[in-house]
Amino acid sequence: MFRSHTNGELRISDKGKQVTLAGWVQTVRKFGAITFVDLRDRYGITQLLFGEELNRELEENPLGREFVLQATGTVNERSNKNPNLPTGEIEILVSSFKILNRSAVPPFTIQDDTDGGDDLRMKYRFLDLRRNLVKKNLELRYAVNRAARNYLHGQGFMDIETPFLIKSTPEGARDFVVPSRMNPGQFYALPQSPQTFKQLLMVSGYDRYYQIVKCFRDEDLRADRQPEFTQIDCEMAFVEQDDILNMFEGMVKHIFQEVKGIAYTEKVQRMTWEDAMWNYGNDKPDIRFDMSLLNLKKPGSVYVEKQDRSELLNDTGFKVFDEAETVLAIAAPGCSEYSRKQTDELTEWVKRPQIGMKGLAFIKCNTDGTYKSSMDKFFTEEKLKAIADAAGAKAGDLVLILAGAEERTRKAISDLRMEMAERLGLRKKDEFRLLWVLDFPLFEYDEEGNRWVARHHPFTSPKPAQIDTMISNDPVIHNAEEYLKHPYANIKANAYDMVLNGNEIGGGSIRIYQRELQEKMFAALGMDKEEQLHKFGFLLGAFEYGAPPHGGIAFGFDRLCSILGGSESIRDFIAFPKNNAGRDVMLDAPATIDQKQFDELQIKLNLK
Amino acid sequence: MFRSHTNGELRISDKGKQVTLAGWVQTVRKFGAITFVDLRDRYGITQLLFGEELNRELEENPLGREFVLQATGTVNERSNKNPNLPTGEIEILVSSFKILNRSAVPPFTIQDDTDGGDDLRMKYRFLDLRRNLVKKNLELRYAVNRAARNYLHGQGFMDIETPFLIKSTPEGARDFVVPSRMNPGQFYALPQSPQTFKQLLMVSGYDRYYQIVKCFRDEDLRADRQPEFTQIDCEMAFVEQDDILNMFEGMVKHIFQEVKGIAYTEKVQRMTWEDAMWNYGNDKPDIRFDMSLLNLKKPGSVYVEKQDRSELLNDTGFKVFDEAETVLAIAAPGCSEYSRKQTDELTEWVKRPQIGMKGLAFIKCNTDGTYKSSMDKFFTEEKLKAIADAAGAKAGDLVLILAGAEERTRKAISDLRMEMAERLGLRKKDEFRLLWVLDFPLFEYDEEGNRWVARHHPFTSPKPAQIDTMISNDPVIHNAEEYLKHPYANIKANAYDMVLNGNEIGGGSIRIYQRELQEKMFAALGMDKEEQLHKFGFLLGAFEYGAPPHGGIAFGFDRLCSILGGSESIRDFIAFPKNNAGRDVMLDAPATIDQKQFDELQIKLNLK
Repeated sequence: MFRSHTNGELRISDKGKQVTLAGWVQTVRKFGAITFVDLRDRYGITQLLFGEELNRELEENPLGREFVLQATGTVNERSNKNPNLPTGEIEILVSSFKILNRSAVPPFTIQDDTDGGDDLRMKYRFLDLRRNLVKKNLELRYAVNRAARNYLHGQGFMDIETPFLIKSTPEGARDFVVPSRMNPGQFYALPQSPQTFKQLLMVSGYDRYYQIVKCFRDEDLRADRQPEFTQIDCEMAFVEQDDILNMFEGMVKHIFQEVKGIAYTEKVQRMTWEDAMWNYGNDKPDIRFDMSLLNLKKPGSVYVEKQDRSELLNDTGFKVFDEAETVLAIAAPGCSEYSRKQTDELTEWVKRPQIGMKGLAFIKCNTDGTYKSSMDKFFTEEKLKAIADAAGAKAGDLVLILAGAEERTRKAISDLRMEMAERLGLRKKDEFRLLWVLDFPLFEYDEEGNRWVARHHPFTSPKPAQIDTMISNDPVIHNAEEYLKHPYANIKANAYDMVLNGNEIGGGSIRIYQRELQEKMFAALGMDKEEQLHKFGFLLGAFEYGAPPHGGIAFGFDRLCSILGGSESIRDFIAFPKNNAGRDVMLDAPATIDQKQFDELQIKLNLK
Repeated sequence: MFRSHTNGELRISDKGKQVTLAGWVQTVRKFGAITFVDLRDRYGITQLLFGEELNRELEENPLGREFVLQATGTVNERSNKNPNLPTGEIEILVSSFKILNRSAVPPFTIQDDTDGGDDLRMKYRFLDLRRNLVKKNLELRYAVNRAARNYLHGQGFMDIETPFLIKSTPEGARDFVVPSRMNPGQFYALPQSPQTFKQLLMVSGYDRYYQIVKCFRDEDLRADRQPEFTQIDCEMAFVEQDDILNMFEGMVKHIFQEVKGIAYTEKVQRMTWEDAMWNYGNDKPDIRFDMSLLNLKKPGSVYVEKQDRSELLNDTGFKVFDEAETVLAIAAPGCSEYSRKQTDELTEWVKRPQIGMKGLAFIKCNTDGTYKSSMDKFFTEEKLKAIADAAGAKAGDLVLILAGAEERTRKAISDLRMEMAERLGLRKKDEFRLLWVLDFPLFEYDEEGNRWVARHHPFTSPKPAQIDTMISNDPVIHNAEEYLKHPYANIKANAYDMVLNGNEIGGGSIRIYQRELQEKMFAALGMDKEEQLHKFGFLLGAFEYGAPPHGGIAFGFDRLCSILGGSESIRDFIAFPKNNAGRDVMLDAPATIDQKQFDELQIKLNLK
């Protein structure tokens, strides 16, 4: 070993010890005949003191930032103690040293508050990774990994590796493919998830499986998506939905405890998808704050069992609301004194193309008990009060109202709710609120193909009570106009998402395990028998040999880490991430390959 | 949950309890009006007793092998106890049951001693995985995984994920490549190992890294190779060779303790590569038994510091030995009474093309003190005795002698040594002997290119004392005939292999961390500056910013598991393995892809 101790280890109790340290030069400070060097490694920083007798040697071999240094000396009590540093009470009086390697001047400073831009730091990621901030992120990631494994191990789960070179079965997302040299003309695919393998493991009797595993999706990258990402992938047999919810809220609570020291003792709230959409306009609501929606008006075709409050809009003659499909409101606490400039600015905000609303109506619930609105011409104060009350507004609050087409307006009010919460400081980084969202629709309607697509994936089971509906009805949509009346439109999935602070961190379902039902599902997605057998023959076959009831969940590991770390960006929690063009700018990959490789693989380029 | 207990859980102390079990029907045995069913899951087997009152129901819903059954009833003491089963003292008196899923008749029996051939079992791998034997293998694999992680965690190592979509830099083995849709004409490569990334992590200061990670090599598959395989991949900074050897023999000992209950307390033997080749003819000798080689004769160009015993062959006039480059012998214990038929059969064995020897000479060391040989015409009994003594033979032993060209003969005697050990029962599956082999040659000579190739990989450092030799000499081989006299021919690597029972289970090295030395290495391998920068510019760049001394090791996880499990085949320890043509016969992958995929990737086939 080049060291006897790390740079985070020595304390005043080690005073007098002869030690050898190694690490990187963080700073060099010369005071006349003596020199102080802060030596850094993964564990911390220790101050080295070079006395007069080493000065000449230092002058001959000057130290620079990021030089790799080995120094031997004695642990001394510092005269000028640094209470912010765990090693701040001591320093090393150096007796000899050796420069293990030199460093060019780094292209940016190795500090939390670096002067390096994103591109530069990605190109020199090996230097960026030296920064304490990035190191803390990777340490947190490892702690989450470790906590998840320990919990799952304790619950009898087995880590079983599934293959990476599999078969391409593009549903939904695109596969990355890998040409096979030994089987010319044929390709492997990289797994989008180990979904079918973990189901086969259930058929095989390994009733509690987990894996922390890389998955691959060749999608156009939105900000903060990566072509390769990591899942905590889990599956259980002989379970119902409730068993899975309990097991995995246990896991996330364990992670909170181990990684953040947070005792999350309350039961995780559960909410149906319909309630989430109805009350928050969103299937992953942030419930750190309330501001739930007032559904003033909605079309009859959706949320059929919900009752809107359209009576509050009756007989006003306000065309904007009368002509709108949907009218939704929220009450922003303590905003009744917003100025004209502020409400104008909010109006501009909802008119931006990303939100796409035509305007914003509001009601100020003044602290003196009066109501003032942008719609004063059409609404009596009594009517304004009734709406404000229904929205849960108190004196001092501001009711914000959006009107328009159902889907867009619901999304817009959800976005506005999040925006107001952000402005009001209600989205606290150190507060964590978990939520289960349940009972998603099993299908979405695909207008282009006039057919169903699986909202989660084709292996998700309908609610037990709806299996018959699915089996006994023809999945074909004969009347595209009236697809909402098709019996499949109302089938709910036995599926669940775990939401943390408004982010989906995990999702899963109870799976289909009956061949007949699985075939019906594939048919609903427009797959004929031949395609079913070509793509999923192995799974349909497996269901004939005693498949048990089973279900599972997968957590987005990168995302979970970034939220626990209080960051918006998953990239900060990945050692070697790719940019938005899917490139590793450090490696300069992807890149061209040799002609020999093309020849061996028997493929060639066909550039447009 | 569909069960209150598993099928491996209930004991006589649970007598009287009301329980619900779920699992697979292993056997159904009808005795008049009652029926016994063995119910199986991952945890064991429990006997169910269906009494008369359930008989009609059973007749209406007959159970078959591998049906998935849920049964509720009372824990009863068995009259006919089965001491071989942990649950053998009890049975469940069933009060109600439900068939959760039916099963077709499996294509082979789900038993240790199955009637299914290899191909059939691979096609139905999900059924094969139900067999207890295969389950034990995967459980062992998980136990090894867990033990390795726990040890490394305890030693301060961090699991850090490295990317799977990287850049193709084919040295040695072929890369699998992945066309990039977003970067048409460019390709990612799948990593053959995370080698350069773990070195960058050392440059970044994460001084103890590990990962249990999939790696990929597109090689023609010999028996028991897989295109994707798993490594325990580790790297440390600020270490010398000895630190790594101690750390990782600690890890393997910990695995022995945790997984096999074996306290491997003795220090792991260390042997130089030259000694291994000299004494065993092999760089991964099995040292569970001795039978070391007697080097009777060797050419002057190799093992230059070793002394052969050619004086024992002087003046015999035996042309076979006189004309041979190399003559090697071993003493097979207790074989002096081999019959003519047996020695003939051994002679045929060494003449097989795989071994390629022209013949086999032997000396019988009879128990009466006489010596009898196939070369009696040329060797006096005194000379025979001298050779036998030098080979370490005692009365009752059989000395076996091979002669021929150096490389082939050394390999042949090593093979013969292993074969004799096998025949003599010296390769015991429950005996484990570890060995470090050290100081490999850094380079091998590539005749075709008249240049050097890296024996381990291009990042391996020479022995510290030989760095100067490497830097100060021109790597070009000007005289191909005399390549052995080139200064590079004698450079030893700072590399080490861990050998278990004659198998290499891990290998690694102290790495180059100086740009100048790394460039010299690349040049020796025939890479010009441009190619160096294109392929490894990021690494050479990283070495300019304070790279610390570092080194590491990677263990072949599949192989380690198979040896610990007492099997020859790694495939038995992989949940979903590929066959020798790189195919997954269950999935039928690789397979053709859609035209749309070709179009999006902008590639086409170019079949010969």
